[in-house]
Amino acid sequence: VTAAPKAAARRGRPGHDLQAVLDAAVALFTERGYDATSMEDVSRRLGVGKSAIYHHVQSKEQLLGFALDRALDGLAEVVEDTRRLDAPAITRLEHLVRGSVVVLQRELPFVTLLLRVHGNTPVQQQAIDRRRQFDRYAAGLVRQARRDGDVRADIDPAVAARLLFGLVNSLTEWYRPVPKTDPSIAEAVCAIAFHGLRVGAG
Amino acid sequence: VTAAPKAAARRGRPGHDLQAVLDAAVALFTERGYDATSMEDVSRRLGVGKSAIYHHVQSKEQLLGFALDRALDGLAEVVEDTRRLDAPAITRLEHLVRGSVVVLQRELPFVTLLLRVHGNTPVQQQAIDRRRQFDRYAAGLVRQARRDGDVRADIDPAVAARLLFGLVNSLTEWYRPVPKTDPSIAEAVCAIAFHGLRVGAG
Repeated sequence: VTAAPKAAARRGRPGHDLQAVLDAAVALFTERGYDATSMEDVSRRLGVGKSAIYHHVQSKEQLLGFALDRALDGLAEVVEDTRRLDAPAITRLEHLVRGSVVVLQRELPFVTLLLRVHGNTPVQQQAIDRRRQFDRYAAGLVRQARRDGDVRADIDPAVAARLLFGLVNSLTEWYRPVPKTDPSIAEAVCAIAFHGLRVGAG
Repeated sequence: VTAAPKAAARRGRPGHDLQAVLDAAVALFTERGYDATSMEDVSRRLGVGKSAIYHHVQSKEQLLGFALDRALDGLAEVVEDTRRLDAPAITRLEHLVRGSVVVLQRELPFVTLLLRVHGNTPVQQQAIDRRRQFDRYAAGLVRQARRDGDVRADIDPAVAARLLFGLVNSLTEWYRPVPKTDPSIAEAVCAIAFHGLRVGAG
């Protein structure tokens, strides 16, 4: 691959060519939809020949898989971190929410793509299965925290888990990355999610 | 229009034919996208001729306008209600959030469509302008509630407003209507948004 301008800046970083291909593909998948995007479109966006793309990936589906894994691997790492915490479920839940916001900020185009996947192909279905594992883990933490008496009993735990991650995922609608990841957004999400917007509420 | 099965159930209700056309169009716009949907697709979905559709609307763009107005008029009504409340900003804000959830539940396909509009046509641009008016009103209430000392001072009011309505709008991702609108969802959203998920938090 002749490095595209965007990729050139990354020269020296391992895998920067595949990285440039992924960035271009994910931008197109999100703008036009996966079905409406061809490998030709990706190569045109990068200003390289199609063969240069096929040097890195075997198919559009594989490209989608790499992109979705980028988001899912980030979230899986947060889950692993959370599992290792020796702390009550409520603390682990807060850690999971905060970590998810940070992954979303760092991998914004990849998480945005993940949230729009509908499971029409095996790769998409696999991504949805991994997302469900994440959701199940989160819902389990809410249930445990509720048994511990640490979260409100007046909300169904499944609804609470959906609302928590609905709040996190809603960031893809308006958050635009700033040069350095802004930690105040993760703090704002956790403050509202766990303590509420009202002063002195409880 | 020969009433489609779904419309038949509404017989006697004024405008039930236009209603059936709107329902079919909105379902198609959301499944395939507005650009990819033709008036022919809408008529085929309804099992009527294209001329029957044009009896009710002049163009696909007008159909989109009616659909978006359905969501926006519902939200505008909640704003009007909220403006009339003789109560502190925090109470009006909570009223606005609760009312928005109820509109979202009642007009789910229309609100879902509204949230996906990107402003590519005059009708879409107009809808986005009306959405922005709503957002500005909500952000103004958060700012006023903060000046009153009723919402936490550690979150930027603009971020807080986005998170509040991100939480509300995230319902379109998973909420599916039950025969009677479920009030517990609106209560759950308000409980988390204003009081937080944690027991005894504040």
